[in-house]
Amino acid sequence: MIKTHSLSDLGTLVKKYSNVIVVADKNSAKYTLPLLELPKVQTLLIDGREQCKNIDTVVEIWKKFEALHLDRNSVAVNLGGGVVSDVSGFAASTYKRGIPYINVPTTLLAMVDASIGGKTAVNVDGIKNLAGLFALPAAVLIDIKFLDTLPLKEKMSGFAELIKMYAITKKTLDLTYLTYVISAFSGGDKMPLEEAILFSAKQKEKVVSKDFTEQGSRKILNFGHTVGHAIESLCLKKNIPLTHGEAVLWGMVAELYLSVKLLDFPMNEYNKFKAFAHEHYDIPQGILNKKDLPVLMSFIRNDKKNSGDKIYPVLLSHYGACRWDIPVSEEDVKDSIMQLILQEVYKRKLGCSLK
Amino acid sequence: MIKTHSLSDLGTLVKKYSNVIVVADKNSAKYTLPLLELPKVQTLLIDGREQCKNIDTVVEIWKKFEALHLDRNSVAVNLGGGVVSDVSGFAASTYKRGIPYINVPTTLLAMVDASIGGKTAVNVDGIKNLAGLFALPAAVLIDIKFLDTLPLKEKMSGFAELIKMYAITKKTLDLTYLTYVISAFSGGDKMPLEEAILFSAKQKEKVVSKDFTEQGSRKILNFGHTVGHAIESLCLKKNIPLTHGEAVLWGMVAELYLSVKLLDFPMNEYNKFKAFAHEHYDIPQGILNKKDLPVLMSFIRNDKKNSGDKIYPVLLSHYGACRWDIPVSEEDVKDSIMQLILQEVYKRKLGCSLK
Repeated sequence: MIKTHSLSDLGTLVKKYSNVIVVADKNSAKYTLPLLELPKVQTLLIDGREQCKNIDTVVEIWKKFEALHLDRNSVAVNLGGGVVSDVSGFAASTYKRGIPYINVPTTLLAMVDASIGGKTAVNVDGIKNLAGLFALPAAVLIDIKFLDTLPLKEKMSGFAELIKMYAITKKTLDLTYLTYVISAFSGGDKMPLEEAILFSAKQKEKVVSKDFTEQGSRKILNFGHTVGHAIESLCLKKNIPLTHGEAVLWGMVAELYLSVKLLDFPMNEYNKFKAFAHEHYDIPQGILNKKDLPVLMSFIRNDKKNSGDKIYPVLLSHYGACRWDIPVSEEDVKDSIMQLILQEVYKRKLGCSLK
Repeated sequence: MIKTHSLSDLGTLVKKYSNVIVVADKNSAKYTLPLLELPKVQTLLIDGREQCKNIDTVVEIWKKFEALHLDRNSVAVNLGGGVVSDVSGFAASTYKRGIPYINVPTTLLAMVDASIGGKTAVNVDGIKNLAGLFALPAAVLIDIKFLDTLPLKEKMSGFAELIKMYAITKKTLDLTYLTYVISAFSGGDKMPLEEAILFSAKQKEKVVSKDFTEQGSRKILNFGHTVGHAIESLCLKKNIPLTHGEAVLWGMVAELYLSVKLLDFPMNEYNKFKAFAHEHYDIPQGILNKKDLPVLMSFIRNDKKNSGDKIYPVLLSHYGACRWDIPVSEEDVKDSIMQLILQEVYKRKLGCSLK
């Protein structure tokens, strides 16, 4: 159940539970907790950074739930970004074999992606989302007032998932419209963004409802994520700051390259997408190096979306038409990443020559 | 899917998966692994003792799965008692958001109870099964040849769950028949036990299929477990050896006492059951003391089956007729445990006077 503009409904929603706990990101709780308007609510502050999306945090949450004697008639309200809903959603769905949870996403990324669809997870040994489960939230409350204090970089991160949603569900990708939305929220006008969030959230809910446990069609949501997750894991390992959205965006560029090569995705559309990406997003220097290829490939080989020895990124024959069942060779995947590396090197050289 | 006498089917069953790992109890692997007849299979040996039913073991399993590049087309075969299927079932069901698992129970307790029904769990901070999830095994293969090396004490433990199954599903509890089965397997004749196992496994499957996530009728399987789990947790804490079945058996005695008091369960049947229990099972000295009551009550208050402040043990109005919705006061629960303590003291005194 997705509701927008309805944070005020939270009080009513939680009334049917015998016990309520808010699990909030401690890094943003001073802004976000007061907005909830839940008087005297029990809270647990957790570290909502990617590094803390691990089983230790889950155990911390289980122990707190137990100390508060939460039972199956209790509810956990997850207040924060994707890390909080992933880790606290996992903790709630496994505490006493599952108590309900409500997501109140406070980042754009969480609003359009992580908070919806019931994928919960933690990283294990630096492998993203190695453990987790499918467990739908009892409700998702989306309210854009949380975005007021969000840095532009974080908004751009979330926006990459929005771009993905348009790319996989609409027959054309209106880059002029997307540029307009970016300009609007960069300049303080949230209305166009709100409309896009609503579109994306509804689309995601539709895709998820048709294939909850990702046996087939839900896989289209992974567009950009085969290569994107590998880039993100690499950066986590190398301690280089890169947002999830940035990783997915460059993942989409790589996977569109594969789509051109293997499914005749229109070359001119690929070039336009690449230009759009470079206009609005950076590849921070040093993130991608040829010598990182073996590590990136090992992350990709271990991707949940694979089956046996084959790599199955989501490919597009054109916008809105996805395939998730095309095996791609390691060589082709390497090529697509090499394209990204070359683009970075080219951009850097260009930057230098312009100085 | 339950199959009996069909360990030989395992080879065929696992053929449809791209990768197979056997997760086996290291304490019994030298007897049990050779019986599997799976050539060159990858194995992980874990410690199948209750103390190791924790998240550290789950993380160990996740890492092994990852090292072997298991994916959603892989299968884990859990070979051992209830601890192995609980902990490895939990690990499999959360690894990459869930890969299938097959249970091959090697103890009587696991054959009649833990291996069937898809309850997976780990203990957290000494609290039994605090974390887990419902996830059905892809198959359960029951083969009584595993029982050949099982100590009698372990068989008696499993037999308590069998007694429970007869008590909650049959209109009369035929204590003569149960005594006959005990005599038979104690003397080396497995046939009557095998029949009882088959009955119990099928009954459990029937109950589970009607209410998988335990919203209502599945709760009858918890008969004996409200008080039983508390006794078991206490013994775990005090490091006193007590089998799960023994704990459940005395839990049943306590909960039948409550049934007499609150639901007019026939007093003579209660007395017969108590006599049968004392004839075949011990309460080891020192397990139950009046001063342990507060700890036992704190375990009971934290039981998953509770709702709000109320305690909801399974009560019987007569055999085969269970209620799980009768709130019971703390005082009554304490009384039922005091009865057990008094019986122990009485039995001990009797033992002394006979010397």
